[in-house]
Amino acid sequence: MTDAATSIRVPRNSVADAALLADFLTMSEFGATPAGGVERQAATAEDGHTRAWFAQWLTARGFSVSYDRIGNMFGLYEFVPGAPYVLAGSHMDSQPRGGKYDGAYGVLAAAHAAQRLVQYYSTGAATPTFNIGVVNWFNEEGSRFKPSMMGSSVFAGKIELETALCATDPAGVTAQQALIDIGTISSNDVFGAGTGRSVACYAEIHIEQGRELDKGGITLGLVDKTWAANKYEISVIGAQAHTGATAMVDRQDALYGAALAVVAVRELAERYGEDLHTSCGQLTVYPNSPVVVAREVHMHLDLRSPSDTLLDEADAVLRQEFAMIELKADVHIERRYAHTWKGHTYQPEGVELSRQVAADLEVSQMLVQTRAGHDSTNMKDIVPSVMLFIPSVDGVSHAENEFTNNEDLVTGVDVLTETLARMLEGALNP
Amino acid sequence: MTDAATSIRVPRNSVADAALLADFLTMSEFGATPAGGVERQAATAEDGHTRAWFAQWLTARGFSVSYDRIGNMFGLYEFVPGAPYVLAGSHMDSQPRGGKYDGAYGVLAAAHAAQRLVQYYSTGAATPTFNIGVVNWFNEEGSRFKPSMMGSSVFAGKIELETALCATDPAGVTAQQALIDIGTISSNDVFGAGTGRSVACYAEIHIEQGRELDKGGITLGLVDKTWAANKYEISVIGAQAHTGATAMVDRQDALYGAALAVVAVRELAERYGEDLHTSCGQLTVYPNSPVVVAREVHMHLDLRSPSDTLLDEADAVLRQEFAMIELKADVHIERRYAHTWKGHTYQPEGVELSRQVAADLEVSQMLVQTRAGHDSTNMKDIVPSVMLFIPSVDGVSHAENEFTNNEDLVTGVDVLTETLARMLEGALNP
Repeated sequence: MTDAATSIRVPRNSVADAALLADFLTMSEFGATPAGGVERQAATAEDGHTRAWFAQWLTARGFSVSYDRIGNMFGLYEFVPGAPYVLAGSHMDSQPRGGKYDGAYGVLAAAHAAQRLVQYYSTGAATPTFNIGVVNWFNEEGSRFKPSMMGSSVFAGKIELETALCATDPAGVTAQQALIDIGTISSNDVFGAGTGRSVACYAEIHIEQGRELDKGGITLGLVDKTWAANKYEISVIGAQAHTGATAMVDRQDALYGAALAVVAVRELAERYGEDLHTSCGQLTVYPNSPVVVAREVHMHLDLRSPSDTLLDEADAVLRQEFAMIELKADVHIERRYAHTWKGHTYQPEGVELSRQVAADLEVSQMLVQTRAGHDSTNMKDIVPSVMLFIPSVDGVSHAENEFTNNEDLVTGVDVLTETLARMLEGALNP
Repeated sequence: MTDAATSIRVPRNSVADAALLADFLTMSEFGATPAGGVERQAATAEDGHTRAWFAQWLTARGFSVSYDRIGNMFGLYEFVPGAPYVLAGSHMDSQPRGGKYDGAYGVLAAAHAAQRLVQYYSTGAATPTFNIGVVNWFNEEGSRFKPSMMGSSVFAGKIELETALCATDPAGVTAQQALIDIGTISSNDVFGAGTGRSVACYAEIHIEQGRELDKGGITLGLVDKTWAANKYEISVIGAQAHTGATAMVDRQDALYGAALAVVAVRELAERYGEDLHTSCGQLTVYPNSPVVVAREVHMHLDLRSPSDTLLDEADAVLRQEFAMIELKADVHIERRYAHTWKGHTYQPEGVELSRQVAADLEVSQMLVQTRAGHDSTNMKDIVPSVMLFIPSVDGVSHAENEFTNNEDLVTGVDVLTETLARMLEGALNP
């Protein structure tokens, strides 16, 4: 048995809790929407303002702030010159009319946890093995520039830097230019070859974006698995015609074909119960005139499953369905994989570490899987990583009415702080 | 029997034909697209350039050019001071990536016919009862500003001037401002109360935009009926959510609801064979992010039928279908009538007049109905009107590959010239 009283480095402190909640309110004013959400898509002015505020916050507390070549933002604090870093963070960018907790809470939680640990270790109570760093990953959301999780994907070597920098938003602006515009990009990296810095392990805390914790009345989710995902870019190609004059039999209506595809994608999920999530969130019609039969439709589809096998099966079914739609609507469908990842497990040692911390802090916990991708999905493939969830009321996410209770926000920071402390002392890198 | 030799005022003339085709080529350069179409939506710079060129054309041939308060453009020529006018024309605005014949041919045909008649009557060969005017109606297409047939609808008193002027394009620019920007709007009207001018009757020639003439090898369509149409603005309202994390059962996916509606609208047509044309050409998703379940979709639906009764029945079926979709997709659907018109007949005297002209000119002809709305659909409700069609190869329209043979273009002008001559001499206003 662990002695909880002695194992907790930074006990709960109401002054620190109040500071966290006050900072969260301040941060939520950047890009605030009337309905209580935020809109600060990657490398927009609003994202830039949030980053500038956060840089000031970090600097004022003794962290050294720097950016890498894909605009990831780091706040570093050195305990042991030259030692590897324990990194913690998430992302401050949001969806259009998104929620204020998604990502942003995780970055602020990491910053507060790191600050508490800097204070704790400065007392000489213990000696950490590693240094600590806070990270705000660039463009996790992928709404402005595709793919999502861009910053951590480049960091983990999963996509090429050049590919990411050249991604364009709907107005044709590149990610590189947008990052230059807000002044948060560098010509050098912060970690990796030539920097003299390396990462020992990673931790991230995030709202659940589902309702398992909320329904079960559980405070902490220990993420042990991530769902597999297939994201597709679809073009449905028909022929432009007059909506009134053209005979129905002569039509090659790209929007009719696209609508059949959207319905097929939804009904595909119904075959598999909740083991397959499917969606089309983005659909654009050309020329999109009320009296013109559409010549082309572009769509972005999203299929996710806890099972790689089931996802492969769904992919094959979808291919057949699309072939039938091509015949039915007299259109051509082009299908490209935009982004795919297999289902993976997080390192069991990390799950066990956070389970032990929750037990020591007497915080209720359960194992959960993440259906959404997170930056930790990338980081766990290069270093030992811990992913923690706190509840989302009613599971609402990517919406302005996303909500998490203050009590859960502060408990999450307590758990993260203790987890990071044990990581700093070598729990995941023996 | 009419003696064809003596009844034709302006015999075919290869110099005049060449002038028509040359002018058509010149006109088609305004807003020309690489694939052979044109893009000059209402009151854009391209529409303005076309209008400026046409004003110069008219002025150089003795017509007096003026604009009314909704930007309809008139070229007037007075034979009999104070007498009413025989008007002829169509529209020069196009769809996005539209065809070069749709509307524009009809305006140019009217101008060439009017010019020939000015020359003819100046010889003193006969004395017209009326004056002649060429008209280029504003915003027939309705792609930039809704509703379509805007200029002729205001002219015929079917929609309020203020309503039309306040219509906005997707960028929020009003029709009034756009017309001011291209300089083709006046603070006075050209016809009607206080102007001292009135319209005796109206003629319009247009490409068929269907394939009946082309399939039958017939040169001239005499339009005796117009299809009824219901145009709807639809809002599908759901709730924004995460495409990956949100459980399928919890989703209120506005795009899924919209896709079911698009499919239902298409399948509605299949119940009625070719007696019902249905379409959704415009569909916009909010927020349209690849990883966000859509909170709202706006659509524009278009239902047309030769039968008012059938259209009413289809309207009722659609209402039921939408109620089922609301349950199935857990969304709310709002349905507004944006523009509706009943099926109507053109005046039989006008049809008979053009039939007689075709016979005298030995041009093959048949009765056809128009499925598309035209400015003559409005004009026929206020004055006797004649509507003529020439063939569209393969029925292609609202597309860049819209095509009509030169032979049909010149024959159309011959028929229109003779029809206008007989109207000027009182054939429809005895």
